Amino acid sequence: MTQWLTDPIDEILDAHIQQAQNHQNQLTKPQGSLGVLESIAVNIAALQKTQHPCVNQAQIFIYAADHGIAHENVSAFPQAVTAEMVKNFSAGGAAISVLSEQHGLPLQVINLGLASELPDLMSVEKHIIAKGTKNFLQHQAMSEAQLIKAFNTAGKKVDQAKSDGCELLIAGEMGIANTTSATALLCALEDIEPDLITGFGTGLNDNGVQHKIDIIKASLNKHHEQLTSPLEILQSLGGFEIAALTATYIRSAQQGIVNLIDGYICSVAALFAITINPQCKNWMFFSHQSAEQGHKKVLQLIGAEPLLEFNMRLGEASGAALAYPIIRSACLLHNNMASFASADVSEKLK
Amino acid sequence: MTQWLTDPIDEILDAHIQQAQNHQNQLTKPQGSLGVLESIAVNIAALQKTQHPCVNQAQIFIYAADHGIAHENVSAFPQAVTAEMVKNFSAGGAAISVLSEQHGLPLQVINLGLASELPDLMSVEKHIIAKGTKNFLQHQAMSEAQLIKAFNTAGKKVDQAKSDGCELLIAGEMGIANTTSATALLCALEDIEPDLITGFGTGLNDNGVQHKIDIIKASLNKHHEQLTSPLEILQSLGGFEIAALTATYIRSAQQGIVNLIDGYICSVAALFAITINPQCKNWMFFSHQSAEQGHKKVLQLIGAEPLLEFNMRLGEASGAALAYPIIRSACLLHNNMASFASADVSEKLK
Repeated sequence: MTQWLTDPIDEILDAHIQQAQNHQNQLTKPQGSLGVLESIAVNIAALQKTQHPCVNQAQIFIYAADHGIAHENVSAFPQAVTAEMVKNFSAGGAAISVLSEQHGLPLQVINLGLASELPDLMSVEKHIIAKGTKNFLQHQAMSEAQLIKAFNTAGKKVDQAKSDGCELLIAGEMGIANTTSATALLCALEDIEPDLITGFGTGLNDNGVQHKIDIIKASLNKHHEQLTSPLEILQSLGGFEIAALTATYIRSAQQGIVNLIDGYICSVAALFAITINPQCKNWMFFSHQSAEQGHKKVLQLIGAEPLLEFNMRLGEASGAALAYPIIRSACLLHNNMASFASADVSEKLK
Repeated sequence: MTQWLTDPIDEILDAHIQQAQNHQNQLTKPQGSLGVLESIAVNIAALQKTQHPCVNQAQIFIYAADHGIAHENVSAFPQAVTAEMVKNFSAGGAAISVLSEQHGLPLQVINLGLASELPDLMSVEKHIIAKGTKNFLQHQAMSEAQLIKAFNTAGKKVDQAKSDGCELLIAGEMGIANTTSATALLCALEDIEPDLITGFGTGLNDNGVQHKIDIIKASLNKHHEQLTSPLEILQSLGGFEIAALTATYIRSAQQGIVNLIDGYICSVAALFAITINPQCKNWMFFSHQSAEQGHKKVLQLIGAEPLLEFNMRLGEASGAALAYPIIRSACLLHNNMASFASADVSEKLK
């Protein structure tokens, strides 16, 4: 049912990199003077197998879901906020609403399962798996069937984006307590002590962080025997939105869509995606390093070089949306600058 | 004639900062979770003395001028490139042309004096001071009258921008050999050894950098007795475009226009502006730290925290134009996000 997760992903060919780099080197600027922008454009050109890398057709997905672990008081905000923020996304009042409007990026929220009922809302699709995950201090967070449903829902959303012509996807998340889930996932996948990477989330105090560490440790102990593969770890400690993000990153790469990765939760999902299907990493661009304690660690594990470091810690795809015009600039510069020859500009002295 | 350079600049009032911060704290996000974006918006709100900070009306000026010191072979590109790139700006083929179009920013080039003649070009205004500065290894780069003309031309351009409703100004530069001028200026102003901050410019090899260091050292020696004030230093070692940038930053602050500072040359000009009229610093936002050797140093001297670090080294306002949508995002988020009360979102638990 989820064999598609390991379906092949096109590799980047050195010849395509070289072709794009040769083009960059003819543009009217000292070679290399656009720095990171040059490597972004060259990589996207090679990924898209084109002379004209393009990310103009971009979309935002926000996967929203609740977490049973929220009942252990691991978040500074009440669980009701997940649903309240979904309404806020729909009404245009959230940070991601403002950024999506600024950049003309269609925003779609996918409700994978909130603890509370929501009416039908504009820009919100319902793909309810359950009224949130179970409390993973006591139970597996989800059943295998639920995990598969999260994967396949995301896979279909990506397929739909592909048929809509999407070139770049920004996937984000909303789910009270999901830094607890993401931290537990990261600890289990990489055998890291929770003390080292557990952070303040939406604004815990020091006591709150210590309590969160204790809950994560106890949860890791409880599920110890089941934590033997990425899928089992996601099933034991994950969230529906984190599983959906993982599948999104893999399916996007299979479909030839560039992924712009948001913050901590998304980066943990990206690490799971890479662990399951390593070639998907080529299609990932990392937008920012957040203030959340564990983010630097997961970026290091991936070998990611985030574009921005603004001390943000909001989630909901906000960091990725902020970085989107930079990726677009890289492509536009690659495509639209004049060459030394076409503009009759003298080249570097020998 | 240039007494206006030290005319007063409005200070930021703590009350306005506090008012804007209070507004930020009511928006539907954990307090502080937008990181650097929050402080940008709060600062611009306080600078503009408004509840609705706005940088939608933004413009790009590129000051172009040639440098006599180019005859000492301190650049990897021939001097003709200054004029050739001005044509390229006008024709839409340069990096800044592409970025200005992406972000809908009007681009105007101000020709302050090129070594070669140029025909009339779209988007290029002529305010010729001379056919470039003199070679400062042998002469003062410019006369006092020329320095004053550079200052006053820039001052008038800013006044015109103000009357056009400009809220944010991006000033950039084009001038072959101007990293040599900027480095000499920085060494003279801050008593720094040229070895420590002289960089590759548009692409010198190691021998080229050593030759550039030697030329800067000899020039500093030659003018030693005249290097006793920022204006004398600019006159001895500066460029018309660097003097214009310095005056632009001061006049913008006096006129209540936010400055988004570009790379190395612009940051050196910003340091001169701050030295002449310290209050102008509040109006400066620093877009990026470039790959040019001395840029980190000048940013440290200013106490600037650049937004981006992309290893760019192009000049022509490219880094500032790239960062512009981020400043705009900060303001839009401040103005357009819902509050906890208006969106009916639960606040943080006590």
